[in-house]
Amino acid sequence: MLYFDHAATTPARATVLDTYNQVAQKYFANPSSAHKLGQEANSLLNNARQQIADLLLFKSNEIFCTSSGTESNNWTLQSLLTAHAKLHPNRRQIILSAIEHPSIRSQIDHLKTRGFEVILAPVDHNGQLDLNSFENLLSDQVLLVSTMLVNNEVGSFLPVEPLAQKLENYPQILWHVDAVQAITCRMKAMHHSRIDLLTLSSHKFHSVRGVGLLAIRQRVTKAPLLFGGGQEFGMRSSTENLPAIVATAKALRLAWENQAESIKHINHYRTQITQALKKMNWQVFGGSQEQVSPHIICAAFPGVPGEVLLQAFSNADIMISTTSACSSRKKNDHHTLKAMGIDNNLANSSIRISLSQTTSQAEVDQLIKPIHEISTKFKQDLKGA
Amino acid sequence: MLYFDHAATTPARATVLDTYNQVAQKYFANPSSAHKLGQEANSLLNNARQQIADLLLFKSNEIFCTSSGTESNNWTLQSLLTAHAKLHPNRRQIILSAIEHPSIRSQIDHLKTRGFEVILAPVDHNGQLDLNSFENLLSDQVLLVSTMLVNNEVGSFLPVEPLAQKLENYPQILWHVDAVQAITCRMKAMHHSRIDLLTLSSHKFHSVRGVGLLAIRQRVTKAPLLFGGGQEFGMRSSTENLPAIVATAKALRLAWENQAESIKHINHYRTQITQALKKMNWQVFGGSQEQVSPHIICAAFPGVPGEVLLQAFSNADIMISTTSACSSRKKNDHHTLKAMGIDNNLANSSIRISLSQTTSQAEVDQLIKPIHEISTKFKQDLKGA
Repeated sequence: MLYFDHAATTPARATVLDTYNQVAQKYFANPSSAHKLGQEANSLLNNARQQIADLLLFKSNEIFCTSSGTESNNWTLQSLLTAHAKLHPNRRQIILSAIEHPSIRSQIDHLKTRGFEVILAPVDHNGQLDLNSFENLLSDQVLLVSTMLVNNEVGSFLPVEPLAQKLENYPQILWHVDAVQAITCRMKAMHHSRIDLLTLSSHKFHSVRGVGLLAIRQRVTKAPLLFGGGQEFGMRSSTENLPAIVATAKALRLAWENQAESIKHINHYRTQITQALKKMNWQVFGGSQEQVSPHIICAAFPGVPGEVLLQAFSNADIMISTTSACSSRKKNDHHTLKAMGIDNNLANSSIRISLSQTTSQAEVDQLIKPIHEISTKFKQDLKGA
Repeated sequence: MLYFDHAATTPARATVLDTYNQVAQKYFANPSSAHKLGQEANSLLNNARQQIADLLLFKSNEIFCTSSGTESNNWTLQSLLTAHAKLHPNRRQIILSAIEHPSIRSQIDHLKTRGFEVILAPVDHNGQLDLNSFENLLSDQVLLVSTMLVNNEVGSFLPVEPLAQKLENYPQILWHVDAVQAITCRMKAMHHSRIDLLTLSSHKFHSVRGVGLLAIRQRVTKAPLLFGGGQEFGMRSSTENLPAIVATAKALRLAWENQAESIKHINHYRTQITQALKKMNWQVFGGSQEQVSPHIICAAFPGVPGEVLLQAFSNADIMISTTSACSSRKKNDHHTLKAMGIDNNLANSSIRISLSQTTSQAEVDQLIKPIHEISTKFKQDLKGA
């Protein structure tokens, strides 16, 4: 079985799963318990939080563990936004990039019900934010801006520095960056002090499932989404998922340590795969090498529905997806491609091949031949039709 | 090390952790992915959901996986309550038992801000709901009632049937039951069709951390707390924590299968421990055997602060807590004992010893002697003072 669906989820590294098991077995106490074993658990939690903070260049007390990237994004647009809005009663505008993840986008109706005006910042045909349009949208009416660092469907990389420059004159605008897809190849880009809120998700970087992170600068007014026992500095109640949090700190460290080396490989693999696709008349989206994270390859084979392509690969024991896992089981909407102005027919013929730091040359080699075979078969089918 | 803090959290059973690892390693795909491995993951998820539904006597499409009991309780009092309130704009009252968990209680201010009136249903000195008072509070003004099945600090068991009878004439009142502490010994009591919403938490019954359950009857109007990819029937977005959910279904089944046998043991252990405590002049709270779940023993040693007692046990390598993990690291408020009308001084001298289905006679035997020794020491200290 060949797995090329890492943007949907990644398997936990063996050493990360080992850490999970060790903590689950040995430090199983509730970190809130005052006895010896609880104190040890709490100490592990503090260490993990410090490790994560060091890797993200945040302070330890700015790292909040949630259950998922989705929860982090909801927390941002729900209670944190409400708290910020109370400080700025005259601001009611929220700017979202037009290619945000469903956990941001699907909140738009809810935001409107709550009296906010939601404005989408447009992207070009490569999925890049139009910086002039973005700048023109900024004003003293704006409460919050949310941008992805790496898009989950196409891989578009939205650089932080140019946006930070545009936001320089608006220090009171909260800036949330969804960096869920950035850990594989664009981790350095997260290290910008202008970012107010940063979302990560454990299972996208070879940790176990079930840990989201929301890094929140000290300067941001905080309010909980989940009330209760007062864990996470009183801001995210629930008994801490200690084994998963410690495992996630380790997985994040490994991702960081491996990044420089693995980017080279992934760039190389991307070139090999996109060349194979283009040779068989696939159209590859996302622009130049600087404009994408190389681990996501979005491409269309005109005339064949993405679902049919996906099944052909699946039958050849190769796991890929149609643009995003979240939309794979629902009617595909190819949201990002549409925002990029890609024709509907072409969008409906698109698939996503996604790599990770653990992808090997051998796996890529095994992918090339089926790309050729499947494309040849569909070419013949289309000719025959 | 002797662990008697199972009400705070339980270690995962070895076979449950095995299941977690097998699923994490073999079925690591995103259940939303349409390819073969994704379909297999999705099929495992459906099976787990069906198993849980069968054990709780709910339908499969009434079982929603969250990240914690806290999240389930917050979902109930946040968006689900809001959705119910829209159907009944003239009802604004919420009734909570006076001894609810912090994840219910700490929402009171937030509920008031949202325009609800919160009324606490009083308990007697054994932690039992006063049924007459409860009945008198019910009216056409009431939107929702939330009661614990087993209290986490004292172990008070609030039987379902008498409350269901009182609620019989009020079918439009949503009834939420927090059954987080009920799995060890009072699982049968959850099986009542009048319950609209039921909260459970994986790590309280020897599963891994990080899965909450909210069972919601089909008749209840639903609204999500977390928006996004549309997982959990569109009601709880986030990539599903599949290994933990499958492990939790297994742990729940084991808890159910072991319950009849282990209740006998736990009842017996409780008797042994409470006798040892009483012999050394401890005061044990919670009333008769029918009024408590036997796995939680709350007792006070008058004159010595609970924190000091806890440390004495911890120094003897015995892990117990002061009434609840959630309050162990904060200034103790002994909320439940206060609601029971227990004198402040006595409440401040209380600890909680909590057992589980895996507690053995050998462990109980090892606890009896330190109870004697620690009590003797503090008796002498108090005499000397």
